[in-house]
Amino acid sequence: MFRYKAIISYDGTLFSGFQRQSAARTVQEEIEKTLLKLNSGVPVQIHGAGRTDASVHAYGQVIHFDLEAQCDIEKLRFALDTQTPDDIDVVGLEEVANDFHSRYNKHSKTYEFIVDIGRPKNPMMRNYATHYPYALDISRIEDAIKDLVGTHDFTGFTAAGTSVDNKVRTITHASVCHEPSKQFLIFTFSGNGFLYKQVRNMVGTLLKIGNGRMPIEQVKLILTSKNRQLAGPTAAGNGLYLKEIQYEQ
Amino acid sequence: MFRYKAIISYDGTLFSGFQRQSAARTVQEEIEKTLLKLNSGVPVQIHGAGRTDASVHAYGQVIHFDLEAQCDIEKLRFALDTQTPDDIDVVGLEEVANDFHSRYNKHSKTYEFIVDIGRPKNPMMRNYATHYPYALDISRIEDAIKDLVGTHDFTGFTAAGTSVDNKVRTITHASVCHEPSKQFLIFTFSGNGFLYKQVRNMVGTLLKIGNGRMPIEQVKLILTSKNRQLAGPTAAGNGLYLKEIQYEQ
Repeated sequence: MFRYKAIISYDGTLFSGFQRQSAARTVQEEIEKTLLKLNSGVPVQIHGAGRTDASVHAYGQVIHFDLEAQCDIEKLRFALDTQTPDDIDVVGLEEVANDFHSRYNKHSKTYEFIVDIGRPKNPMMRNYATHYPYALDISRIEDAIKDLVGTHDFTGFTAAGTSVDNKVRTITHASVCHEPSKQFLIFTFSGNGFLYKQVRNMVGTLLKIGNGRMPIEQVKLILTSKNRQLAGPTAAGNGLYLKEIQYEQ
Repeated sequence: MFRYKAIISYDGTLFSGFQRQSAARTVQEEIEKTLLKLNSGVPVQIHGAGRTDASVHAYGQVIHFDLEAQCDIEKLRFALDTQTPDDIDVVGLEEVANDFHSRYNKHSKTYEFIVDIGRPKNPMMRNYATHYPYALDISRIEDAIKDLVGTHDFTGFTAAGTSVDNKVRTITHASVCHEPSKQFLIFTFSGNGFLYKQVRNMVGTLLKIGNGRMPIEQVKLILTSKNRQLAGPTAAGNGLYLKEIQYEQ
């Protein structure tokens, strides 16, 4: 048995998320369909480092899977890349130790969230950024975002009904930047793990702060109170990108 | 009768081009369907400044149409913008003189062509740039592109079977730039008119020159010989953007 780790990117627009579901198109299903063909009809299960929701994109999702055969790495990567649909690219592949697990090996993740603040609207970006045509004071967002960095209980920023018990996570980096054309606002978050809808809830809250409808101190309040009623709306999935996953050695 | 001029942008991915066809989704058809509703069921024909092909995008296509009623401009723009499908945005509207014609009034057009030269591939850009993963010497393209500027007979750069007799056009600006991330090469062309598939043929030729498979002097040779067999392949439509149309006063 040989274990392979792949880095994949995908356009989430036409997927109902990463994880296999019974009656919807998912990234996992498409890759497993391709592996089934490449593996002479023998099913292969893949394991992703994290689930992404419907319409969420990835540049650096990591998966692993096992094959009986030891393969030529570049041939296998090329076959996977070209035989999966156009909206999935397999950008890296390597053979790894049999105990490597994309999800359980310690890692940090980086997410980006792109907000289209341009006028007029850009139809080319309608699936790749969340349009926010309202006034924004970026300096308020820059002030508030700092309060997210560190080890906190993020209960107030997760979705109701999450099954995870321990909601303490560490954010090592949180920033917002204005790209040169002023068309887009790009949020970046790195940390050792993120709860369900956490990034989208943080962005929704920060936009409301930037728009002046919540005080800058609201982030601190949500963290200490653990009250999700105090957070802003969940930002749409189309602006979210799983950018990179870094494993500890 | 009141004449309106609108600036529209659209994502060409899901359109079979701008111009109405019998059995395919087009930009013209979608806008005319919306105008039919807004105009109490009375058909309204729109006239575009230029046709764009399947999968070609626009930031600044110009159309005009007539209505019996004089409308509140911002209300009409908003109605058109929000009632057309998501992949069409109506970004500007004004009332114009009854003799204005989007196509026949003298104007210059600017096209952009985006080539994705990044590795790995970016699935988010698969419909918005043409992927070219081969070696490119940009300085060769910069040298060759200068020969396109000026008034020339562009027969060698148009598609066979074009019905237009006079193939002399003037290109006032032609440039190529590397955007900062080195992921994209952006071609820009402005001129008083472009022949069918001219921009895509010029880009296909320039890429072949950049890749070293055609001499830098090939552009001059194609112009003087008017021989389309000497030109490179037609670059795919998904990288092409109708950027702006400027009317003479």
